[in-house]
Amino acid sequence: MSQVDEADRLALVRLSVGGEPGHLRLAALAASLGPARLVEELGRAPGDPEDPDAYAARILDADPEAVLEEAAGAGLRFVVAGDEEWPAALDELAHCPPLHERGGPPHGLWCRGPLRLDEAVARSVAVVGSRSSTSYGETAAGDIAAGLARSGWTVVSGAAFGIDYAAHRGAVAGGGPTVAVLACGADRAYPTAHRSMLDHLAATGLVVSEAAPGLPPTRIRFLARNRLIAALAQGTVVVEAAMRSGALNTASWTSGLGRVLMGVPGPVTSAQSHGVHQMLRTRDALLVTRVEDVLEVVAPMGEHLQDDLRAPDRPRDRLDRVQRQVLEAVPLVQWAETAQVARAAGLTRTASDRALGVLHRLGFVEHASGRWRQGSESLPSSEGPVTG
Amino acid sequence: MSQVDEADRLALVRLSVGGEPGHLRLAALAASLGPARLVEELGRAPGDPEDPDAYAARILDADPEAVLEEAAGAGLRFVVAGDEEWPAALDELAHCPPLHERGGPPHGLWCRGPLRLDEAVARSVAVVGSRSSTSYGETAAGDIAAGLARSGWTVVSGAAFGIDYAAHRGAVAGGGPTVAVLACGADRAYPTAHRSMLDHLAATGLVVSEAAPGLPPTRIRFLARNRLIAALAQGTVVVEAAMRSGALNTASWTSGLGRVLMGVPGPVTSAQSHGVHQMLRTRDALLVTRVEDVLEVVAPMGEHLQDDLRAPDRPRDRLDRVQRQVLEAVPLVQWAETAQVARAAGLTRTASDRALGVLHRLGFVEHASGRWRQGSESLPSSEGPVTG
Repeated sequence: MSQVDEADRLALVRLSVGGEPGHLRLAALAASLGPARLVEELGRAPGDPEDPDAYAARILDADPEAVLEEAAGAGLRFVVAGDEEWPAALDELAHCPPLHERGGPPHGLWCRGPLRLDEAVARSVAVVGSRSSTSYGETAAGDIAAGLARSGWTVVSGAAFGIDYAAHRGAVAGGGPTVAVLACGADRAYPTAHRSMLDHLAATGLVVSEAAPGLPPTRIRFLARNRLIAALAQGTVVVEAAMRSGALNTASWTSGLGRVLMGVPGPVTSAQSHGVHQMLRTRDALLVTRVEDVLEVVAPMGEHLQDDLRAPDRPRDRLDRVQRQVLEAVPLVQWAETAQVARAAGLTRTASDRALGVLHRLGFVEHASGRWRQGSESLPSSEGPVTG
Repeated sequence: MSQVDEADRLALVRLSVGGEPGHLRLAALAASLGPARLVEELGRAPGDPEDPDAYAARILDADPEAVLEEAAGAGLRFVVAGDEEWPAALDELAHCPPLHERGGPPHGLWCRGPLRLDEAVARSVAVVGSRSSTSYGETAAGDIAAGLARSGWTVVSGAAFGIDYAAHRGAVAGGGPTVAVLACGADRAYPTAHRSMLDHLAATGLVVSEAAPGLPPTRIRFLARNRLIAALAQGTVVVEAAMRSGALNTASWTSGLGRVLMGVPGPVTSAQSHGVHQMLRTRDALLVTRVEDVLEVVAPMGEHLQDDLRAPDRPRDRLDRVQRQVLEAVPLVQWAETAQVARAAGLTRTASDRALGVLHRLGFVEHASGRWRQGSESLPSSEGPVTG
């Protein structure tokens, strides 16, 4: 059961309706006074010179009961700190340095969808990136998101064009829950082209926003929204980002929160990867190439111990040094005398002959009329001899 | 002038001719006894049970004067520690952990080409990678090598197919010196398809090897050779490498020597980049995307302070927060009333109107019949509004 005082909840609705998302002063006042007391104080001094944004009037003018009722009609519930489904992870925003004069925990989150927010994000990873993505980036984002979903992890993203869309879609394809965090009201579809996807997420996952129902997205609301994506997830994967991409803003929030920041590399010739490469060079970010890399760092210790990605053992790996040395001395095409092999290998006849016997048994060399050449087992792989 | 005793020089020729490159025991004995004394000792106990490779007989059988004379005829000189052109950087191999039972400084380097070895590598970077490279990797290697050459840095590589070739070619295109370190004798061309390139390097740069003239390349000689590439250069850039690529062996030598290890990322879908990504994930390697990144870490401090790669400033960056907030509230296509703008911006009329005036002067908004819409200055860039 929620432990939230009803007066506080209504005050939080007022703050959500009247205050800009992530407004620093309002967040600080709400934290120190409590929401209900803050609204009372605003009513006492509506002409506050420290209120250039004129939020006081909007907060006092709001009709929270009507807003809640209308929101409920649109399938929205308002989740605040103290509610059972409030994720404790959001409280860490109180200790995260602000960016662009935005920060702090949200007054509440408007949620649309069947999942419990705290459960949905308990094991979650944010997958974000450029809106003007390439098909390379979309594939990488989709693959990682689908892998997360298959591993029982929730994908958090921003429902934007490009990487965000590929991430949500990948999670759906992987059969896992996905949470869209919007910069506009959770009842709205932005971009409008993603309306059907957002409706699908609202039917199967969650669409959330701190912006009051009906609020349109603005640049500053996108920046404030990004802190919620970073805060809800255990880590953030940036898939593609040009040098000015907003995904790098989400990356900054992730670092500020002390969460795991990850980046998927791409061709150095792709402008859409420049921001990711810069992030991997200059911030404490991990390079990841596949979902296993992601799970290795976000999953509780020991849960996803990953096998080193390595090529299968080759038969010649089982040879000892002298045997390898002799094998190297045996020609590939022409035939060599036994003495020639020993000489080319730089070994005594005894050592060389013993090795040739083993190599012959294992199929590495062929033997005819007292002469030797390499056999099928030692045919070069595509990578050929190890060389720099 | 060289301070090398002539008996030691001849003994080193014997060791080069009779001992395998990077043979640990021979390197250790030469270091503790001195080359001439070592050869004497070998002559006293030719049946050493600790000599399974039968090097003693080959060392004693060698005719160092004849070898030097024949080498000189092929344009080769033998450079040993104490010679003026011996690079001190090679001595650090004495303190580098061995790999594949190979290690230690070379007995000497056979050099072909007009440059002084120590001067050629005083400011040098190794650029290495897969032999089965992609055109992406070859372009990246060539661009970095050309950039190094243009900045007065020498490119060191192994003359192999693929990335090595692209690196040498890039350095030549950039008008700078390049050094090829071979696993076979410096008089030979391996691979033979690169004979004309090697001849060009021998005419303009350097072709070097610790393997005696005439010696063919073997797998273990490639591994031993890689330590010289790592040791001659101030840092190593791995451009493409599959999971088993020999370039990762050069990377191991680079780490063992405490030199700067760098990797160029690529598409996560390219097997030729998997080894590089693994290296960037698990070793203390730096992600580099262009020559400026390389110079930043290998150049003496302050020499190549690099400007952050950033997109050009956009005019809207010059706006203050309130002006940006108002601009966001102005529609792109349709026209909005002055009061509507203030309401959408969440600002007082006074603050909003003042900002609209500034925005109009700067061309960010258009004004007609008391209504507003965004102007040409604020047309979205390709990246659009900053978003996650």
